[in-house]
Amino acid sequence: MTAQGKLHGIFTPNMVPLDTRGNIDECGLRTYVDWLIAHGVHGLYPNGSTGEFTRFTPEERRRIIEIIMDQTAGRVPVLAGAAEANVRETLAACEYYHSLGVRAVAIVSPYYYRLSPDNVYAYFREIGRNTPVDVTLYNIPMFASPIDVPTIQRLSEECERIVAIKDSSGDVPQMMRMIEAVRPNRPDFSFMTGWDAVLMPMLLIGADGGTNVTSGVVPELTRKLYDAVAGGCIDQARDLQYLVRRIFDALLFSADFPEACRIAIKLRGLPIGPSRQPLSEKHQAVLAELEPKLESLYAEAGVPCTRAAQSDFTPQQIGQIVATVLQSLNAQGSLS
Amino acid sequence: MTAQGKLHGIFTPNMVPLDTRGNIDECGLRTYVDWLIAHGVHGLYPNGSTGEFTRFTPEERRRIIEIIMDQTAGRVPVLAGAAEANVRETLAACEYYHSLGVRAVAIVSPYYYRLSPDNVYAYFREIGRNTPVDVTLYNIPMFASPIDVPTIQRLSEECERIVAIKDSSGDVPQMMRMIEAVRPNRPDFSFMTGWDAVLMPMLLIGADGGTNVTSGVVPELTRKLYDAVAGGCIDQARDLQYLVRRIFDALLFSADFPEACRIAIKLRGLPIGPSRQPLSEKHQAVLAELEPKLESLYAEAGVPCTRAAQSDFTPQQIGQIVATVLQSLNAQGSLS
Amino acid sequence: MTAQGKLHGIFTPNMVPLDTRGNIDECGLRTYVDWLIAHGVHGLYPNGSTGEFTRFTPEERRRIIEIIMDQTAGRVPVLAGAAEANVRETLAACEYYHSLGVRAVAIVSPYYYRLSPDNVYAYFREIGRNTPVDVTLYNIPMFASPIDVPTIQRLSEECERIVAIKDSSGDVPQMMRMIEAVRPNRPDFSFMTGWDAVLMPMLLIGADGGTNVTSGVVPELTRKLYDAVAGGCIDQARDLQYLVRRIFDALLFSADFPEACRIAIKLRGLPIGPSRQPLSEKHQAVLAELEPKLESLYAEAGVPCTRAAQSDFTPQQIGQIVATVLQSLNAQGSLS
Amino acid sequence: MTAQGKLHGIFTPNMVPLDTRGNIDECGLRTYVDWLIAHGVHGLYPNGSTGEFTRFTPEERRRIIEIIMDQTAGRVPVLAGAAEANVRETLAACEYYHSLGVRAVAIVSPYYYRLSPDNVYAYFREIGRNTPVDVTLYNIPMFASPIDVPTIQRLSEECERIVAIKDSSGDVPQMMRMIEAVRPNRPDFSFMTGWDAVLMPMLLIGADGGTNVTSGVVPELTRKLYDAVAGGCIDQARDLQYLVRRIFDALLFSADFPEACRIAIKLRGLPIGPSRQPLSEKHQAVLAELEPKLESLYAEAGVPCTRAAQSDFTPQQIGQIVATVLQSLNAQGSLS
Repeated sequence: MTAQGKLHGIFTPNMVPLDTRGNIDECGLRTYVDWLIAHGVHGLYPNGSTGEFTRFTPEERRRIIEIIMDQTAGRVPVLAGAAEANVRETLAACEYYHSLGVRAVAIVSPYYYRLSPDNVYAYFREIGRNTPVDVTLYNIPMFASPIDVPTIQRLSEECERIVAIKDSSGDVPQMMRMIEAVRPNRPDFSFMTGWDAVLMPMLLIGADGGTNVTSGVVPELTRKLYDAVAGGCIDQARDLQYLVRRIFDALLFSADFPEACRIAIKLRGLPIGPSRQPLSEKHQAVLAELEPKLESLYAEAGVPCTRAAQSDFTPQQIGQIVATVLQSLNAQGSLS
Repeated sequence: MTAQGKLHGIFTPNMVPLDTRGNIDECGLRTYVDWLIAHGVHGLYPNGSTGEFTRFTPEERRRIIEIIMDQTAGRVPVLAGAAEANVRETLAACEYYHSLGVRAVAIVSPYYYRLSPDNVYAYFREIGRNTPVDVTLYNIPMFASPIDVPTIQRLSEECERIVAIKDSSGDVPQMMRMIEAVRPNRPDFSFMTGWDAVLMPMLLIGADGGTNVTSGVVPELTRKLYDAVAGGCIDQARDLQYLVRRIFDALLFSADFPEACRIAIKLRGLPIGPSRQPLSEKHQAVLAELEPKLESLYAEAGVPCTRAAQSDFTPQQIGQIVATVLQSLNAQGSLS
Repeated sequence: MTAQGKLHGIFTPNMVPLDTRGNIDECGLRTYVDWLIAHGVHGLYPNGSTGEFTRFTPEERRRIIEIIMDQTAGRVPVLAGAAEANVRETLAACEYYHSLGVRAVAIVSPYYYRLSPDNVYAYFREIGRNTPVDVTLYNIPMFASPIDVPTIQRLSEECERIVAIKDSSGDVPQMMRMIEAVRPNRPDFSFMTGWDAVLMPMLLIGADGGTNVTSGVVPELTRKLYDAVAGGCIDQARDLQYLVRRIFDALLFSADFPEACRIAIKLRGLPIGPSRQPLSEKHQAVLAELEPKLESLYAEAGVPCTRAAQSDFTPQQIGQIVATVLQSLNAQGSLS
Repeated sequence: MTAQGKLHGIFTPNMVPLDTRGNIDECGLRTYVDWLIAHGVHGLYPNGSTGEFTRFTPEERRRIIEIIMDQTAGRVPVLAGAAEANVRETLAACEYYHSLGVRAVAIVSPYYYRLSPDNVYAYFREIGRNTPVDVTLYNIPMFASPIDVPTIQRLSEECERIVAIKDSSGDVPQMMRMIEAVRPNRPDFSFMTGWDAVLMPMLLIGADGGTNVTSGVVPELTRKLYDAVAGGCIDQARDLQYLVRRIFDALLFSADFPEACRIAIKLRGLPIGPSRQPLSEKHQAVLAELEPKLESLYAEAGVPCTRAAQSDFTPQQIGQIVATVLQSLNAQGSLS
């Protein structure tokens, strides 16, 4: 364990706002980071699944971490997604992110190919032996090769630099199996759940926190649930868990992940921009129908919703207005 | 359809030989290309799943196509895997590969995230509308979002530039459904199977050819099976299909894909080098056990096997020997 | 192998007509048997999945075989589904069906619980050692514990009484693996496919026949496909296979299996009666929509469709008419 | 809701002891019932999955309920598994079990065939409309057609006689979704979990109890966990949940379900007898290896283990001894 202490609390797997041309909206990202910290999240987790790491180029992924590190400026720890095309590239990213001062990196299990457990082990062992920075294993069996319990146990025993697992299986008994297998030998090892629908149960059976998609859209609510469990307020926690689960379900199952998150962030009054994934007309309709549903959930959660303020003009319309104004000014010679 | 005619025959999803440091072995790749063409394959398909496209950087993927195009020099058509992080990057790759003269590109359905059919459609439509080069859809449901029949039908009707599908599901009735849905309106559309275990049935029910992993290790055999079916020699084709299936099973199911292919290529006497994916000791043992099994299959297929010639020294040992010799020479001042 | 020869050809997994009260319609069943034989099927397979064996009581299952044996009267061989609650009950059924003169029994792999391959082996071994009648293994992984290739191989080597497998996986390479593992030692062992969508490929790679649901509704067509393949008429077989697959898809995927078969049989002008499974209003609507689709497929296949003759009155309407007439007669004192 | 109050607490899905010939061991079953009640379970649930209902004949299933009702004699409520081959047979069982005084029946969703949600609804609606006794829906998606949330909601709203669901999915968010959909309109409706590995989380988020396999082998422990959660002792509950999960995992995943339960019951010193499912040599070895593991878990749980007393002779050996003695006595003419 490093001197920085065990990873715990609510880390936000943050999305990356894009501008109307689909490029990283640096200003928007900085705004979003400040907003998240102001709303109580314990840390940030850029370049995760919610952060659409696969849809950015390697250079963009680095740029995202640079902006995040600059903007957080040490206010909260950063867990940087560092998975690249292969071990060499991943280790280079680890080194770079280490130089930027991240608390740890998170590395998703190999994806596309489904690897056997022993090669998942070999992959992380190679990284664990060579990384200059703490590593969080990232288990998300719906998208990548599963990391099974024996693999986690071996890695935790053999690689001091591997300090945590982010588990997005949502499987409560599996979390118990992991904790049981690892904690006796590695009390510093941290267990984070990525499945908000069971955040309360996970914390109650011993998880240290979560990297929770809901914390990117209703950070105050996810944080409140975490605090309620930590404070032993089971009845309050139960009510919050029901509410968080409803929002989580809307984010996960209303549309192709993570498109609903973009809508949900927009409804909080934040700049987020369009998707890099082309969306069918059908999917756009689905997302439009989601808006009132989310507004209703926000009302229930008591979090502000700023759709009205925004809805006069879409970002596209604003872009067109600005363009028209600029053109007009230009025609007048005002911009020379 | 372009003037170049419909895609058909056996295309090899070729691997990329690496040197001992894990870099692209350009010389080895050129050797492999020549060997494949000499052994009768109708075309090449670099940057596919067998070609481990996800384990190379974007720059390396481009370099691979450059080498392939230079080395084939028009002898056989090239189908270049062009999937990148997002539509913009993918289209840039399409343009570059078009400038290099590829016959078509192949674009795998979005992976990591599992997209709904309508967004798979939206993705390919965006590409189909903007590509300067013919596009082959690549359906591989075990690794990527499935492309369903209505999606293929719509894309074939709306996008002239989409000219083929490579289907690696191995699902024979599904191939019939695709052909039935597309061929009446697009007789030029090509159907290629990536599942060698059913190459004969696929060709018999109307597929145009295959992008077959076995053709990268026993090209003469895969080609012979294709020719037997084309020539109406059903009994011969059946015997060849049984043999091809045994080799295919060994390549697909003996080890984490595509590690067994590397062993199989090495046994043909070709330079292939190590994997970029770290392999566990257990997996290395599995691969070692595979060698005699493959040799036996090669003997049955009547294809030469050159393990003996190679086995005196491993590439690693040769590397060490060279290093020792260089060190020795250096110590003697011979290299100054 | 028995003196009766190897199982081969098209066996119909026949449904059981019910009367309006849901009881076995013995007369209807006898009519159906005659119709099937007259339309060319090589054998019958009652008490299979299409035959809804799980929805009848043990006594009813026995009654079904009694009727079938009596009605076939040796014209075609009968393969009797004999799976009961446990080995003892199953063996008692084997003995009874043997006494009735069935050609063989078919026993589905244990279902509800998913057994491991070694206990599937133990189950069939116990049956194979004690049965007085030839046994067909029935592999249907979508409903029951899968029977894997090593299990089939062991059973074929150890139990002479186990003479065939009915495989409803539709997995062509798996059929090749089974044939390869069993045929060298047991040339008498028969391989029957239950997946009509690939009947032609299955026969071409060596299967002996099929137990095909389409043969219960368009027996002349399924038989024609079988004959075309047997006669080496590949082009004709391909066309028939496309047509059979369309009908198969309609039977399998239009509605909860095997409800669509009931409609399809009714459209051939045969008595079939209602389902024992209560159908939702939604499902009834689905089945109503299926009728014109099937009629169109029948027209394409050139088989007679007798819907018009039947459609004037539904069984319910007829029941009501009869009730009204009886009431009227009763009121007049005519029935005293 | 009936006057008998809402179903709640720990119900044991009890196994049925068999004698050496494989028949129901009535005496053993009565002993087991008394033992379970003495060890604190709130109710019994015969003819469930653990009770191997599919491996008994319809007559045997009735006999089991008769014995159970006679032996419990009103000490605890009984939830009787009543699923038969079809709705008519199932309703007949409901009537009979009602006449015997069961608290309610439990009816598993249709199995073998996988029904669509709307036909699952139609099935239970038909039962719900005609049953004379309260009905518990039994959702066990790993073995039977899943019962989804809209189906549960509709049934709870339309059928007063449907009073509970036993859910063996182990899916905590799904339980929340069910409770959220049903409880507002049906506060009397009961939610029971069949997945002991998450009993604590399920109770904490609002479930009323469980039908728990562990309560058949360590009833005092499962009950203690239930009481700890009910009493708000979260820390104690967590420790018990870890222990219950370990035993649950051993029962579920060590061997083909429910074979490990038989071993676990035997180790508590109870008569249980052999399985009706033939077990392979490999599986017998697995079960033998399980014994010390279970003994160790029992020691950890502080529950008595009586293996030593039993282990001198296996039931088979005892059977042989008895047979030898009888033969000897017979030879002497003592038994004439």
